[in-house]
Amino acid sequence: MENYQTVRVELEERSYDILLGQGLLNQAGRHVIPLVQSNKVIVVHDENVTSPHGQTLIANLENAGLEVATLELQAGEQTKCLQQLERIWDYLSELRFGRDCTILPLGGGVTGDLVGFAAATYLRGVEMIQVPTSLLAMVDSSVGGKTGINNKFGKNLIGSFWQPKMVIIDIDTLKTLPREERVAAVAEIIKYGVIYDAAFFQWLEKNIQAVCDLDPKAITYAVKRSCEIKADVVSKDEREGGLRMILNFGHTIGHAIENTAGYGTIRHGEGVAIGMIAESLLALDRNPEWKAPHHDRLVNLTRAAGLPTKIPDNLELTKEQLFDAARSDKKNRGGGTRYILPIRLGRVEVVKLEDKDVEETLIAIGAK
Amino acid sequence: MENYQTVRVELEERSYDILLGQGLLNQAGRHVIPLVQSNKVIVVHDENVTSPHGQTLIANLENAGLEVATLELQAGEQTKCLQQLERIWDYLSELRFGRDCTILPLGGGVTGDLVGFAAATYLRGVEMIQVPTSLLAMVDSSVGGKTGINNKFGKNLIGSFWQPKMVIIDIDTLKTLPREERVAAVAEIIKYGVIYDAAFFQWLEKNIQAVCDLDPKAITYAVKRSCEIKADVVSKDEREGGLRMILNFGHTIGHAIENTAGYGTIRHGEGVAIGMIAESLLALDRNPEWKAPHHDRLVNLTRAAGLPTKIPDNLELTKEQLFDAARSDKKNRGGGTRYILPIRLGRVEVVKLEDKDVEETLIAIGAK
Repeated sequence: MENYQTVRVELEERSYDILLGQGLLNQAGRHVIPLVQSNKVIVVHDENVTSPHGQTLIANLENAGLEVATLELQAGEQTKCLQQLERIWDYLSELRFGRDCTILPLGGGVTGDLVGFAAATYLRGVEMIQVPTSLLAMVDSSVGGKTGINNKFGKNLIGSFWQPKMVIIDIDTLKTLPREERVAAVAEIIKYGVIYDAAFFQWLEKNIQAVCDLDPKAITYAVKRSCEIKADVVSKDEREGGLRMILNFGHTIGHAIENTAGYGTIRHGEGVAIGMIAESLLALDRNPEWKAPHHDRLVNLTRAAGLPTKIPDNLELTKEQLFDAARSDKKNRGGGTRYILPIRLGRVEVVKLEDKDVEETLIAIGAK
Repeated sequence: MENYQTVRVELEERSYDILLGQGLLNQAGRHVIPLVQSNKVIVVHDENVTSPHGQTLIANLENAGLEVATLELQAGEQTKCLQQLERIWDYLSELRFGRDCTILPLGGGVTGDLVGFAAATYLRGVEMIQVPTSLLAMVDSSVGGKTGINNKFGKNLIGSFWQPKMVIIDIDTLKTLPREERVAAVAEIIKYGVIYDAAFFQWLEKNIQAVCDLDPKAITYAVKRSCEIKADVVSKDEREGGLRMILNFGHTIGHAIENTAGYGTIRHGEGVAIGMIAESLLALDRNPEWKAPHHDRLVNLTRAAGLPTKIPDNLELTKEQLFDAARSDKKNRGGGTRYILPIRLGRVEVVKLEDKDVEETLIAIGAK
């Protein structure tokens, strides 16, 4: 029996597999070889995972007969910038890598987004195999083909949709991830339950500690189910024309909090956790099937994961700041601010709301 | 009766129309309106076409009720760079243009490629309507979805495939184009005859003066037939997997000449003209159906258009320089140099040749 599981992302001729299991970095070569057009590959990795994960992956690819170039990136959101993008473009150009090369981003969401965008645009697009090492990247950014960089006007304003040929998720890499990073990412996992799968939400209520503690069976299932749900949504709406918007549950307010607090002050997942609570509160007033007990279950699960449910007291964020940030989000350009509200467990809707309808809720989650 | 003709580019859900005729800038609004998602559009134009073409287009779009932002670009190949790309990204970000905006590049190939790439990557892709004003852009770069910029390692190394929603070709804009620019672009028109359509080649033999003199009927037909052929090739091979390579007839050696001489020393079309003669010579030795009379017809047509058939005497380009340049072309990365050789009029093949098989030919076209 194989020691990994597979989730298929159906996107016609751009369809691909997500492999997930333990110890996959150490067998990457045999999964990569059938997909490459030439033996020229490059591993672009976050400095935090150079040792041991980068070494393991590179050695395994070399043993499989591939010619492996490498490039190390500084850790942190500030790396998702034009200068680093140009650095990757220049390095590939200098190595004279051709259209038949394959690029493997190894790291978290920053690495995947930046390097994925480089792959999308070098020689008008070369192949890429995502190797996410953070929980957030595994359940979110490595699936769905969104790539990009930030500019001084905002996050992810520049980018492409570019699908990988494969995603290799080695659950073991999570062991080297700081616990707070892991916990923050659990917010995205909870999100999948609320937007798409009540049974998964229930499963999380029972198994949240095991997930947070990296119990192999629990974390593998949680990641797999998250990938399946994201894959399903993305395959129905690759370019975010409609359905894909539901993946933004918690994100309108979450991003606004993250953005206003200053990136790095609050983790993405923490912002999303607070944002989900806020959007759940908004739904209480509007959606008859979404009742206080449902809201309480979301609050309890969020707390059980160790995630915040309110803006931390030491952050002085005003309603106006949050509204401004929400409005400048690229999804809300061209009029109105969209929120994703639960209808019932496993189902959400996209609504446009006026600021006045959201004010009270922002106060309730700790805005000034 | 409508005063324009239409060429359909079939690319499934990315299919679009090329409109061509006289005076189209002055009726652009009614063609653009049905395609836009919101009334926010931006015309990004080359400084050389600000007056009168930019003014005409902008006024017409505004009269149709669109909200038109504008951005002027410096003329010249050096504009196809990262700094100008960032300038466009920043400007769109600053204006808070949303995903529902439409970008109209107005100008030649530089404008179309650069602004097209900005459209492909701003907010992960927004809509674009190409408005080419140079003959080269009309028959080549505005059709097929290639966008991109240069870096210090070469031309078009960075870019995306991004299809426009429409291409609007106003033949009248050619009147303001310097004659040498026009003539250079005729090389690409001749190319279409050789690679795809013997009857078109014959038609060109009879009408080349009328085409070069901008006789409205002749130039419209030449542009239309060129667009049809390119559209047909592109619709069969959008991402240059195979067939699309035939569009590079004359380009392996043409680019090498252009690149080695230094951009600006020799026009793209002039390089292609010489490259076609060289690749025709190579075919004489290899393809039994391609005989001296065919080669002579190509030489005569090229000359009749006012295009060079040899490297100008004042340029000291060595064989070695040209081979180096050909090898570093992105299409030839990953082993071997590809040339496109005529089999007979209307049909070409892609072959890999060793430098030694090409040496004599390079000497024949004037390399040292």
